[in-house]
Parts: sequence; structure tokens; C-alpha cells
Amino acid sequence: MTHILVTGAAGMIGRKLTERLAKDGTLNGRKIERLTLTDVVKPPKLSGFSGAVEAWVSDLTAPREAERAVAARPDVIFHLAGVVSGEAELDLEKGYRVNLDGTRALLDAVRKTGRGYCPKLIFTSSIAVFGAPFPDMIRDEFHLTPLTSYGTQKAMSELLLSDYSRRGFVEGVGIRLPTICVRPGKPNKAASGFFSGIIREPLAGETAVLPVSESVQHTHASPRAAIGFLIHAAGLAREQLGTRINLNMPGVSCTVGEQLAALKRVAGEKVAARIRRETDPLVEKIVGGWPEIFDAQRAIKLGFRAEDTFDEIIHIHIEDELGGKFAA
Amino acid sequence: MTHILVTGAAGMIGRKLTERLAKDGTLNGRKIERLTLTDVVKPPKLSGFSGAVEAWVSDLTAPREAERAVAARPDVIFHLAGVVSGEAELDLEKGYRVNLDGTRALLDAVRKTGRGYCPKLIFTSSIAVFGAPFPDMIRDEFHLTPLTSYGTQKAMSELLLSDYSRRGFVEGVGIRLPTICVRPGKPNKAASGFFSGIIREPLAGETAVLPVSESVQHTHASPRAAIGFLIHAAGLAREQLGTRINLNMPGVSCTVGEQLAALKRVAGEKVAARIRRETDPLVEKIVGGWPEIFDAQRAIKLGFRAEDTFDEIIHIHIEDELGGKFAA
Repeated sequence: MTHILVTGAAGMIGRKLTERLAKDGTLNGRKIERLTLTDVVKPPKLSGFSGAVEAWVSDLTAPREAERAVAARPDVIFHLAGVVSGEAELDLEKGYRVNLDGTRALLDAVRKTGRGYCPKLIFTSSIAVFGAPFPDMIRDEFHLTPLTSYGTQKAMSELLLSDYSRRGFVEGVGIRLPTICVRPGKPNKAASGFFSGIIREPLAGETAVLPVSESVQHTHASPRAAIGFLIHAAGLAREQLGTRINLNMPGVSCTVGEQLAALKRVAGEKVAARIRRETDPLVEKIVGGWPEIFDAQRAIKLGFRAEDTFDEIIHIHIEDELGGKFAA
Repeated sequence: MTHILVTGAAGMIGRKLTERLAKDGTLNGRKIERLTLTDVVKPPKLSGFSGAVEAWVSDLTAPREAERAVAARPDVIFHLAGVVSGEAELDLEKGYRVNLDGTRALLDAVRKTGRGYCPKLIFTSSIAVFGAPFPDMIRDEFHLTPLTSYGTQKAMSELLLSDYSRRGFVEGVGIRLPTICVRPGKPNKAASGFFSGIIREPLAGETAVLPVSESVQHTHASPRAAIGFLIHAAGLAREQLGTRINLNMPGVSCTVGEQLAALKRVAGEKVAARIRRETDPLVEKIVGGWPEIFDAQRAIKLGFRAEDTFDEIIHIHIEDELGGKFAA
């Protein structure tokens, strides 16, 4: 029997993770008897789950909220709560408060619970912990020099998680997610938004704007793969991880041109033609500072799996988000 | 005309730095008109300095203390305040409060000063930001995986300093000091203490205990070199540093056997014989997790200079601490 806490449960990853946990009914072979879901907005209702569900509106940085979240001693914590990179860059104080102080409040609440409490804690970090200039291939021992406040907050949280794990308060795993593609939902203003938009909009019969050249290379994993990473991380034993608990995740590294070629293969010429090329120098500049390709050796050895091709990523979007159909 | 703030001014590095600044009377070719010295104990009086000196007892994490320290808008800040690694390991809350929250309070006080205030801020970090296992040579792009709370707090502070520099609140430089050798003063309980003790005690006519094998390799810089790093860092232009402002410092990498051979060359057989070999498995284990050798290419290109040989390090100790004489 296992009790799981998910922070940030109302976000895109949070909703997909809780749906998957509810559907599976088990984690690491143990029945899930209880799910505690928190977020700053009310997490959506879960269907088809026989265990207990509590869903709260909660800000981890508010007094006693982190203590409340862990009071019932959840066995596994998926800590997804955070503000996104654009918001962390625009509002410095909010970014540090939510992304750093929120993580620290949660870790301190766990530490102060005491009496042998040592949950598994899976933290969603990001490849934003890295900053240009990059070598041809980013290996597992490349240093962290983030170029955004968001990346800085993620890197600081990783270090804290690692120290608290070493001291035996939690069994932490930090998962550095690549860009999640195809992101469902409406287009947003994130500089990375077009990587999903150029697949999602054409499949929905809409035209998407491509603001960069087709030679831009980037690493992607599907939302389904991201959920898989989190669940796999929860099953890793402390001895498998050692002291280096923050891991680069695998992904599909390809150029924008290869993304579009995959779209043509999967959905046909007509769909792939729904692209308007409109170079945006600002987006080109931002994207130029991002990592292109990782050699995620440790994660792969530990059994983390992403897709093998971008075609698969498109098929997963059609299956999971479009009910198997698209606007041909 | 320049105004300098030194936090942690009563510590070993703090005292040597303020003495040097007082003696020089200038920094980067500008006359020092004012020195503000803070520490949790009263910083010692300075002699031979014609400018204004204020010395306060101050804890940067106490309300309004960081604001008070920067209220007069010092042009250059040497942020040395912190608790040492042994204390940070024994007292988790104190370590995070002083080493992380203290640095953050100082940076936030600078940020909130506003009206174009952007001081140069030199931060003493440590090679404790690294953790075993290590490659044969630690290069500038090796990742940070500290194995102590102290190293974690230093690494987190480096990241914060880097983000606040990128945002234009400070011109930060993080200086990762190697082991400072020969440390003056009494033997202490630090696991690294013997690296200094095996030189300092024999030169003072005392016997020193060597708790590890002579094959142990380590990187050292003299206190004089450390002060040189800090002063050199204060003279670097923002454009020279770019976005990667945290730097591995150079040093003399040698084995304990080479340290003792240097002692024999500099001070004679009789002095070098004042060593008692008494293996301490705990110290051997701790030291085994420390970095042995760095390729500090960036720092060297930027003009940072350490000693070339361990003989020089011993000569500097004899000159700076023993008035040129030792117990032959």
C-alpha cells in the first residue's frame, strides 16, 4: 500500500501523471491507496480510481502548507510545482519564492517530520540548468551554468535535494526534462512553443508559424515519455543512483527540418504544408543558447526510455490527444 | 576614490585582506577612501591606513543588517563571511542560514538599493563544490556535485551570484579557493588541517601528526596567493569574465611526500624529522573524496597566479608568519 503526494498536480505534467497513477492503480508493484494532490489552483477530479483522493489548493511557501502536505507521511512525493521560465524571468521574487523557497520548504517539512520518515522524492528539473556555449555533445559531467533565473532556481533546488538525500532525509531523484513535445493545448508565448506548435496546429487544421531556420537542432520527449521518466525514477533504489541523483533524461534530438519531414511521413503533404515561415530574430537568438544534444548515458543505463524517432512522438500526440484522428 | 566592504573581516583571510588593502592604500589604481569591515565578532583594528574605517559586529542574516552593510553603496564588496565546513556539517540549519541565506540577503540588499547601484562583488567559494569520483584532471567545465552541506551552500551561492550578475545587480566573481596552506595559527580539527600542520608545527619546533600516506595528492595555495586572487578578481572587467563568473583557482598540486621533501630542502633534515606517522582511517577516507588536481585554464588566462612550487609556499609562511626565522 502506498500513499503518493503530487505537488503542481493541476499542471500539464501533473494532470497526466495523476491520470496515469489513477489508471495503473499501482506504483512499483504496490497498490496506491491514497493520492494527495496540491496546486495553487484546484487540481481536476480523477475518475476510475478506487483509493482515497484529496485535492487541495495550496502554496508550499505559505506558512505551514508544506508541513500540511507531508503530515500524513506520503511514501512517494512527485514535486512538480513551480512557475515556468518566462514568469521566473519577469518576476524575480516570485520565481525564487516558488521555485527555490517552495522546494526548500517541502524538503525542510520532510526533514522536520523525523521519526525515520524518508520518502522517495522525484523532482522535475530542466535542461535549463545548462547554458551556452556548449560542446558538440552534452555529457553527464558537464557543468551547470544556467542563463535564466528559472534554470538557476532548478539548479539550486537540485543541489539542495542532493544534500538532503546524502543526509538521509529523502531519497531524491532530479529529472532534467528535455523540451516536452508535442505539448497539448493552445499556443503560448514561450520561446520554445513553436517546437510543439509546428506539429500540433497543422494536425488540427491550423497554420503554425515557424520563427527559426530548419537547421535548428533540439532535443524532445513526448508528454507520455516524461510521465514514464517520473514513474521509472520512483522505482529506482538508492544504491542504483549513488550520490549523483540529478540526471539528464534521454530524448529525440533532431532538426526542425527533420520534425517537418516526420510530420509529412506521418500525416501527409497537405498537413505538413500548414507552416508559415516568419523568422523572429529574438526567438532565433534565445533558441541558439539552448542545448542541442545530450549523451544521457547514466539515465539510459538506469533504464529511462524516450522515443527513438520524432515520428513516434507525433504518433503519440495523435493517440493521446486527438483520439487517433487528425485534420488531413 | 573607492569604498570597500569586507564581510567576514575578522577571519584569517579577512584579516590578511584588510591588512593588505590598508597597506596598499589603493585598489585597481584608485585610492581607498573608506573601508567597512563586518563580522560576527569585532574585526581587529587596522594600522597604517589613512582613510576612514568602520568595523561592525554584524550578522548578515539578521533583519536589516545586509541593508545596513550596503547603505553607503560600497564600490567593491569582498564577501568572505561564512561558517566552515565542519560546522556546516554539524549544524545544518546554521550552515544554510549563514552560508546561503547570508549571501542571498547581501545580494538582495544590493538589488534593492537600486538607482544604478552595481558593485563589484567578490565571493570566496571553495573546491568543496566538487565531489568524487573525479577524472584524472578536473577541468573548468566539470560538474558540481558537492558531498558536504558546506560545498552545497557554496555551489548554491555561486549560482545565485551568477544570476544576479547576469541581471545586472552586481558584477560578481566567485573564487573557488584550493586548500590554503600554510594556514597560520593553532592546529584545528578540520580533516584538512594536517596539510598545514606538517609544515607549520615542525617549523615551530613541534611534532606534527601525519594521518595519511605520503602518496596523497592535493592542491594548495598560500594565504598570500589567496589574497592575490581576491584583489586580482576585483580588477577584472565584466567583458573579460562573460557569463561564467565562478572560477577554479590555480594552485600547487603535490603529494604529501613532496610537501615533506620541500620542507627538508627549505628547513633541513632536523625540522623535517618532526613528523609522527599515525594513520587515521577516517581522515584518509575523507581526504580520498577530495579533488587532487585542477587544470585551472580560465583563471590562468585571466591572470590569476598561485605559487609554482611547494618550496615557495613554505618560504612565504616563514616570511609572512615567522618573521623570516624558524626553529632549526
